[in-house]
Amino acid sequence: MKIRPLYDRVVVRRKEEEETTAGGILLPGSAKEKPNQGEVIAIGEGKVLENGELRPLAVKVGDRVVFGQYAGSNTIEVDGEKLIIMGESEIFAIVE
Amino acid sequence: MKIRPLYDRVVVRRKEEEETTAGGILLPGSAKEKPNQGEVIAIGEGKVLENGELRPLAVKVGDRVVFGQYAGSNTIEVDGEKLIIMGESEIFAIVE
Amino acid sequence: MKIRPLYDRVVVRRKEEEETTAGGILLPGSAKEKPNQGEVIAIGEGKVLENGELRPLAVKVGDRVVFGQYAGSNTIEVDGEKLIIMGESEIFAIVE
Amino acid sequence: MKIRPLYDRVVVRRKEEEETTAGGILLPGSAKEKPNQGEVIAIGEGKVLENGELRPLAVKVGDRVVFGQYAGSNTIEVDGEKLIIMGESEIFAIVE
Amino acid sequence: MKIRPLYDRVVVRRKEEEETTAGGILLPGSAKEKPNQGEVIAIGEGKVLENGELRPLAVKVGDRVVFGQYAGSNTIEVDGEKLIIMGESEIFAIVE
Amino acid sequence: MKIRPLYDRVVVRRKEEEETTAGGILLPGSAKEKPNQGEVIAIGEGKVLENGELRPLAVKVGDRVVFGQYAGSNTIEVDGEKLIIMGESEIFAIVE
Amino acid sequence: MKIRPLYDRVVVRRKEEEETTAGGILLPGSAKEKPNQGEVIAIGEGKVLENGELRPLAVKVGDRVVFGQYAGSNTIEVDGEKLIIMGESEIFAIVE
Repeated sequence: MKIRPLYDRVVVRRKEEEETTAGGILLPGSAKEKPNQGEVIAIGEGKVLENGELRPLAVKVGDRVVFGQYAGSNTIEVDGEKLIIMGESEIFAIVE
Repeated sequence: MKIRPLYDRVVVRRKEEEETTAGGILLPGSAKEKPNQGEVIAIGEGKVLENGELRPLAVKVGDRVVFGQYAGSNTIEVDGEKLIIMGESEIFAIVE
Repeated sequence: MKIRPLYDRVVVRRKEEEETTAGGILLPGSAKEKPNQGEVIAIGEGKVLENGELRPLAVKVGDRVVFGQYAGSNTIEVDGEKLIIMGESEIFAIVE
Repeated sequence: MKIRPLYDRVVVRRKEEEETTAGGILLPGSAKEKPNQGEVIAIGEGKVLENGELRPLAVKVGDRVVFGQYAGSNTIEVDGEKLIIMGESEIFAIVE
Repeated sequence: MKIRPLYDRVVVRRKEEEETTAGGILLPGSAKEKPNQGEVIAIGEGKVLENGELRPLAVKVGDRVVFGQYAGSNTIEVDGEKLIIMGESEIFAIVE
Repeated sequence: MKIRPLYDRVVVRRKEEEETTAGGILLPGSAKEKPNQGEVIAIGEGKVLENGELRPLAVKVGDRVVFGQYAGSNTIEVDGEKLIIMGESEIFAIVE
Repeated sequence: MKIRPLYDRVVVRRKEEEETTAGGILLPGSAKEKPNQGEVIAIGEGKVLENGELRPLAVKVGDRVVFGQYAGSNTIEVDGEKLIIMGESEIFAIVE
């Protein structure tokens, strides 16, 4: 199965980290404050400008990105894997 | 009966899934977190740009689409079948 | 008496349906979830674009339309009949 | 005394109706649901477009208009008469 | 002391009226429903359009104006006199 | 130390007044209703227009200005002095 | 590891100050009112204008900047160091 995001939307595979404190206790999601990270899996064709033209996105497939902590609420299961769909404006930066 | 959505609106037939947990219990809608899926049944002529021109939609009839979990609130019954009407901006991606 | 809507406004005669459940109980309005339907009685000259020009509406008099469930709040009595006035953006689709 | 509305504002003399039910009981304003009606007394020179030009209004002095139920909150007393001032966008239609 | 409003701002001297009911009781401000009136004391150079140009205001110094009941909240004391500063969009009409 | 505001931002030194009532009681800030005053210490290069050009500000260094009562919430300490940073749109007028 | 902010986003290293009162008590963050300061570590390529072009940012790497007190909520850990990501519009001024 393949997923094609519309316009300025981006599909991201969230990077799962060991979420343990120094003492080894698993932290619930609500205790994390830092932005989320992940890898770009698919991108849309571009953002629609006011004149109707498409502006290609700045991120590309394979980029490792940092996104806002509220960007991960829309998920989709593709081939048994849970992915996130977000607008490119919810992505803060590319990490290299 | 035929339905013609206006402008950037799209009519979608929601994909009904077996909503059972591992133990076979039927989950109520509010317990689901993943975006909804469905098939595009009809599309509008396009989104009106600021200069008044129409920009054709990116989805087409027959596309299998993923949409936001709050996109399904406007429904219409056509020939005894319950369909959803949403703006194209509520559609996240096309699944192939 | 004749009514001429301004700009992108549309006057609609609501289709009154038998509102009964299988057991014949009359449902109050708040229990209905499906969009409302009706017939277009009069339309405005068009939507004002940012450059000041008018863009003619997509609906025309006689169209049977589906509109949002909150679109029916502005009513007017014309020749003893209660009609609805709404913006064209509150109309989802034309039914044929 | 003469009143000159600015830009897209319109001065309306509200039509006072007999507000009685079948049994002759006077209804308080909050029990009315239908839009208000009135006669246009004065109009502004036009709406300012984004490029700074004025677009003349669609209503003219003498028009009988229907307006939203919340449009009547700004009133002014001119020569002892209470008139309403509203934006033209609060006027739904012209009644002929 | 002289005051020069910026852009589309206007300085108004509020007209103080005898606020008495038929029986001579002084009404507190919150009991008044009609728009406020006053005289234009100073005006800005104009409203900044999207292209950066200035559009001169429609009111001029000396105009007697009617403004919204919430427009009077920003005041300034000039030479011991309390004046109001508001945007021109808060002025409804010029009274002649 | 020198401070260079970005774009349409302005640094203002608030004018400190004797805040005493007739009886000599010091009034807390919340009891004041009049707009604040101060002197412009530094200005940005201009406001960014939609086309990306800069529009120079209307205020200049040394101007005595009146600003809204909620404009003073962003402060910075420069060389031991507490200054206010605000957008030029929060400035109502220049006092001469 | 290198971080490339998207569009008009800026990465800032917050300046940590001695947060002590006269008596030497450490103040919690919520007791501070002044804007935050820091050094620009990385900047995006520019802000996207309505016509799709990029407008380069006004800040550059190495600038010492003052930003709003709510701008520091999005952080990222780069090589063990906690940095802040914000839009350039949250930066008030450059300090020299």
